[in-house]
Amino acid sequence: MAIKLVIAGARGKMGSEVVQMVKTDPTLKLMALLDYKSKKMSEEHHVPIYSNLETCKNQVDFDVIIDFTNPQASFEYIKSALTLGFPVVSGTTGFSRSQLKELEKIANQQKVGCIITPNFSIGAALMVKFAKIAANYFSDVEIIDKHHDQKIDVPSGTAIHLSEAMKEVRKNNNTPGISKQKFPIHSIRLPGYLAHHKVIFGNKGQVFTIKHDSMERISFMDGLKYAVQRVFEYEHLVYGLEEIIMLDER
Amino acid sequence: MAIKLVIAGARGKMGSEVVQMVKTDPTLKLMALLDYKSKKMSEEHHVPIYSNLETCKNQVDFDVIIDFTNPQASFEYIKSALTLGFPVVSGTTGFSRSQLKELEKIANQQKVGCIITPNFSIGAALMVKFAKIAANYFSDVEIIDKHHDQKIDVPSGTAIHLSEAMKEVRKNNNTPGISKQKFPIHSIRLPGYLAHHKVIFGNKGQVFTIKHDSMERISFMDGLKYAVQRVFEYEHLVYGLEEIIMLDER
Amino acid sequence: MAIKLVIAGARGKMGSEVVQMVKTDPTLKLMALLDYKSKKMSEEHHVPIYSNLETCKNQVDFDVIIDFTNPQASFEYIKSALTLGFPVVSGTTGFSRSQLKELEKIANQQKVGCIITPNFSIGAALMVKFAKIAANYFSDVEIIDKHHDQKIDVPSGTAIHLSEAMKEVRKNNNTPGISKQKFPIHSIRLPGYLAHHKVIFGNKGQVFTIKHDSMERISFMDGLKYAVQRVFEYEHLVYGLEEIIMLDER
Amino acid sequence: MAIKLVIAGARGKMGSEVVQMVKTDPTLKLMALLDYKSKKMSEEHHVPIYSNLETCKNQVDFDVIIDFTNPQASFEYIKSALTLGFPVVSGTTGFSRSQLKELEKIANQQKVGCIITPNFSIGAALMVKFAKIAANYFSDVEIIDKHHDQKIDVPSGTAIHLSEAMKEVRKNNNTPGISKQKFPIHSIRLPGYLAHHKVIFGNKGQVFTIKHDSMERISFMDGLKYAVQRVFEYEHLVYGLEEIIMLDER
Repeated sequence: MAIKLVIAGARGKMGSEVVQMVKTDPTLKLMALLDYKSKKMSEEHHVPIYSNLETCKNQVDFDVIIDFTNPQASFEYIKSALTLGFPVVSGTTGFSRSQLKELEKIANQQKVGCIITPNFSIGAALMVKFAKIAANYFSDVEIIDKHHDQKIDVPSGTAIHLSEAMKEVRKNNNTPGISKQKFPIHSIRLPGYLAHHKVIFGNKGQVFTIKHDSMERISFMDGLKYAVQRVFEYEHLVYGLEEIIMLDER
Repeated sequence: MAIKLVIAGARGKMGSEVVQMVKTDPTLKLMALLDYKSKKMSEEHHVPIYSNLETCKNQVDFDVIIDFTNPQASFEYIKSALTLGFPVVSGTTGFSRSQLKELEKIANQQKVGCIITPNFSIGAALMVKFAKIAANYFSDVEIIDKHHDQKIDVPSGTAIHLSEAMKEVRKNNNTPGISKQKFPIHSIRLPGYLAHHKVIFGNKGQVFTIKHDSMERISFMDGLKYAVQRVFEYEHLVYGLEEIIMLDER
Repeated sequence: MAIKLVIAGARGKMGSEVVQMVKTDPTLKLMALLDYKSKKMSEEHHVPIYSNLETCKNQVDFDVIIDFTNPQASFEYIKSALTLGFPVVSGTTGFSRSQLKELEKIANQQKVGCIITPNFSIGAALMVKFAKIAANYFSDVEIIDKHHDQKIDVPSGTAIHLSEAMKEVRKNNNTPGISKQKFPIHSIRLPGYLAHHKVIFGNKGQVFTIKHDSMERISFMDGLKYAVQRVFEYEHLVYGLEEIIMLDER
Repeated sequence: MAIKLVIAGARGKMGSEVVQMVKTDPTLKLMALLDYKSKKMSEEHHVPIYSNLETCKNQVDFDVIIDFTNPQASFEYIKSALTLGFPVVSGTTGFSRSQLKELEKIANQQKVGCIITPNFSIGAALMVKFAKIAANYFSDVEIIDKHHDQKIDVPSGTAIHLSEAMKEVRKNNNTPGISKQKFPIHSIRLPGYLAHHKVIFGNKGQVFTIKHDSMERISFMDGLKYAVQRVFEYEHLVYGLEEIIMLDER
């Protein structure tokens, strides 16, 4: 049976792609939109549209709220969703620390799952997860981030995140040889690239590499769908897709 | 304080390299050799040599037995070691199923750790471990094994092991899209290569790659040392280095 | 001073992208379109439109004709262009052998350059060019073609072309060790990939790799522009972009 | 018919490997050694040994002199070889500019070939050659050099050579977009690596890569043999293996 969704932020770039994906996926079903009341949008997507979650809840049956709006709107939507007991999957970025704290508190009180993540790429999440594990087994690590030449950040946010996550892991590891805390980052900027990351681990006589290539925005869909499927298992707020990756090999 | 070792099989290719490594590692200490009584070997390595573990035990203090012999000799050494309560790390291959069963039984009874693995490469173990996890998140997987042109096996044993391990994992996963059970293996044989494996995962818009390059035999030393450090935590027989890789990110 | 262009086929997928590119490039200038008479198209692109090259020639000043139509229309356009003494750069595919022969004859008679190529990617052209050279220096070669899982051809046309071009080269080389005529092709089809080729050469102790990644259609623009710049140097028909790559390192 | 060789420097690391290679190659034949008179060496290799090329020439028939000694000895050997009209292939490094000038002069006068190169890797020579050509076709270039962590030079000599060779080429190219003169070099130092170089070229929508992996010293043998076969075609001194790579695709 399909998971029934309400989507907030369907007008935005991400939100509109999410709506397209949901329409073509038989395991997901769009029930309503959360937005200002727009007859046109409602007709375009063949679902009712509400500016308010309470009204929506009284008229439509749904399981999860997906949110891709902005921190202001999003904060209100998530707060009311959690308060009403509905799980939330949100890709909105830019929440303040105190906003996250408040949402976390409500999720805990209501025992309802809330997954907020700046990045829905499964591959990037696995890369971070695996890098943190492998960092316990190799003396030396270097990171390469390759992006198109219009990218302003050098190094990329993901490269910095990888580096910091591995540092954190090694701080707690006192195996001799695993002490190095510096992971050089090499940033390559060439027209032709999209978004690519490599973490390279070396020990005497062997090299171990984890690599992620992001080719198109569509790549975030797998992670979004995965989060929607898993959010029911949680009774608290989770920040970062990598936190819901399961390592148990099933 | 150094871990005190007795080594069986010091005359062999692997055994002799192990002895060299142990001598240069301050965290390990060679106490005795297990072999036929050879005055020359004893003098060469500055340690006593015994043909029998009981005698060795009465005269020397040690923590672990390392074994790189052959299935016949090895079986006897490991049996007597476990019976006497000593943990064992063995790289001997070719045990029969019934031999492994018997060793497993003794380890359980004596509650002593015994790690037997055909491969001591940490990188290869991580590759298998991570591939089994990632196989739950990507619809399609292909494997590349690259070796020098003298290698007879096509595909490599590791490539087949990777494929079977991922199949096993997917059998238990009924997420839509993760159903494919065929993982094409591409075997490249070129002079110039040593031993290289790649597992490539694809979802729409993204590619995720795990890669291991084995450059020199010395690469197995990390894994051996890691097994020696960890064997004390076990009270049973473990087969395969990948089984002792820790996924908890510490 | 900008090169002045007339474009045939501006309604098509490629043709319309070419028009866009030309408009943003100060070294190129669109003077007219060749098509059925369409007031709308003429207004959209702010240039006159002609269904006939002779008329066009009488009213507009231009240097080169770019053609992205279909073999029927294209054949006539190119024939009249060459006859009138104008160089042509064409990306139209599907000419018959006799059509190419006839165009070749006219180009020779008129001593005017005509570059026809199924592929305008500079990187792909360099890959073929370099592979043909390197094939003289390595005993063993293998090819990997990686494409998205919707691609029907296995192996890719480029992989086959690479293989045949290297075979041709080796036929004429009787250096001992360079005799092998079989170049295994490994075709990887994964969602997430776009279009990627690798030619891997091996000799004892070393590996040499030439790799081309095609990320977006826009990539053909460099090659097109390069052909437009170079077509004036030729007095005959050239088939294949790789034939105009210069190896003299300038 | 085998090419008949005299080898100078057979006691050194390279020289002794060269002797081993020559013995196993039916297209090459060792006729004599040039060294101080050593009965032991002579017996070991089953060939006569001479301290002086003139004497050698009077008693033995040979085609080429191979030299892997030191600048002092080498300079004298090469000088007398060229003067006597014998082609020379030398891997000796460290000649002064005036020494090279003098050898060049003698080679020209005698119209005899002399190939001196610090590096006999065919793959590295092709990489430099191709990079110089490709640098004319892509706006942006970056270089990665990967080596084991004991390597002191950062970046590697080859990476610097690549960068300078491409700069030189671009200086003479005034195609718009090919003006950039900065090629970032990324040096990765990890235990596990041997010696690896990558030159990555980017244009909008595409990436082109040339890569060389050096796995073992044996890799220089192909280049040495290639130089021995080609030296007869030259009537002057050539410095650098890349200078004799043929680009004509045969």
